[in-house]
Amino acid sequence: MASFEEAETEETVTCLHMMFYHPFQQEKQVFRHLNFYKREQLRADEVAKFGRDGNICHYILVDARVSRIQFSLQLFRKLSGSELCFEIKNMSKRTKLTVNNLELGYLNKIDLPLKCMVGFGDYQILMHVQEGESVDFFETFLELSQVSLLQEQYLPSLQPIPEHGISPSLFYSQAINPVEKPVEIDENEL
Amino acid sequence: MASFEEAETEETVTCLHMMFYHPFQQEKQVFRHLNFYKREQLRADEVAKFGRDGNICHYILVDARVSRIQFSLQLFRKLSGSELCFEIKNMSKRTKLTVNNLELGYLNKIDLPLKCMVGFGDYQILMHVQEGESVDFFETFLELSQVSLLQEQYLPSLQPIPEHGISPSLFYSQAINPVEKPVEIDENEL
Repeated sequence: MASFEEAETEETVTCLHMMFYHPFQQEKQVFRHLNFYKREQLRADEVAKFGRDGNICHYILVDARVSRIQFSLQLFRKLSGSELCFEIKNMSKRTKLTVNNLELGYLNKIDLPLKCMVGFGDYQILMHVQEGESVDFFETFLELSQVSLLQEQYLPSLQPIPEHGISPSLFYSQAINPVEKPVEIDENEL
Repeated sequence: MASFEEAETEETVTCLHMMFYHPFQQEKQVFRHLNFYKREQLRADEVAKFGRDGNICHYILVDARVSRIQFSLQLFRKLSGSELCFEIKNMSKRTKLTVNNLELGYLNKIDLPLKCMVGFGDYQILMHVQEGESVDFFETFLELSQVSLLQEQYLPSLQPIPEHGISPSLFYSQAINPVEKPVEIDENEL
């Protein structure tokens, strides 16, 4: 066994954090096949597919309204730089995929922003890339939100990102215990 | 059985023609696992992978100098148009991939030109996209060249492409019966 001194230098791994929300998760359990709060490692050449068909998709959504493959994510490196980036592609002929405010049709793809809101149908996914060094692997880390992510504190354009991204725990605590927004009360109710 | 009148309108399928050349094919038979002169159909969501590892790659190159996955090809549609395009990505950490004059490093990708010369190591592949209507499938058609493709008549920049591409048969006949280039003879030999 290689000793601590002789072992290869440990590398950080690029991790794609994804926070999922669906308004009927409680009743329909559409996310029942997703492994939440567990880092999963994929090879750099693997395509992460999300959809209804478990024979093709690793990330399965249990919902008859979801396409066999809804969308896919894969790693690449820009010609101009060395850092790893993600590309997202809409694989659904039926449903548009939105990435922040951009609408993707079938087989349209774009480079995934470091932090963005992805949506299709009733699904909301807040994605956030935590950059790492390894070029052999990447990881995914899925979280579940009990509240809609279409709130001010989640919208990418309104929330500045610290230089090294937000920590998973902060990301998590925001979703489970969202900050209460002040409720406007009608004068007549007072 | 549906009658001819009731059958769905037949669609043309986007076909990626690839003509392969390797200087030591005769001795090494590096292409022995490729199915030449046979159209192969893939689903629009499938990634066509070329490399040494038959567990991952559908298109196997029998050569110890080739990476487990050398490069990959996949369909997409541009945001601005409806036509199908291909993206090519270098999956080799060891070897650069050239697309015409552009050099791609590991995990670099570009949109594949309609006609282009792809290279890595001693390998030359002349690629040519024949556009089709179907958005569910694409096809590949592989050909073998006995002569180097780095000759004037194959170089994309020197050969104008007719509006609807060149026919496979023309593509094929050019490779098997290349036009003889005039040989320069030294004055002293006369």
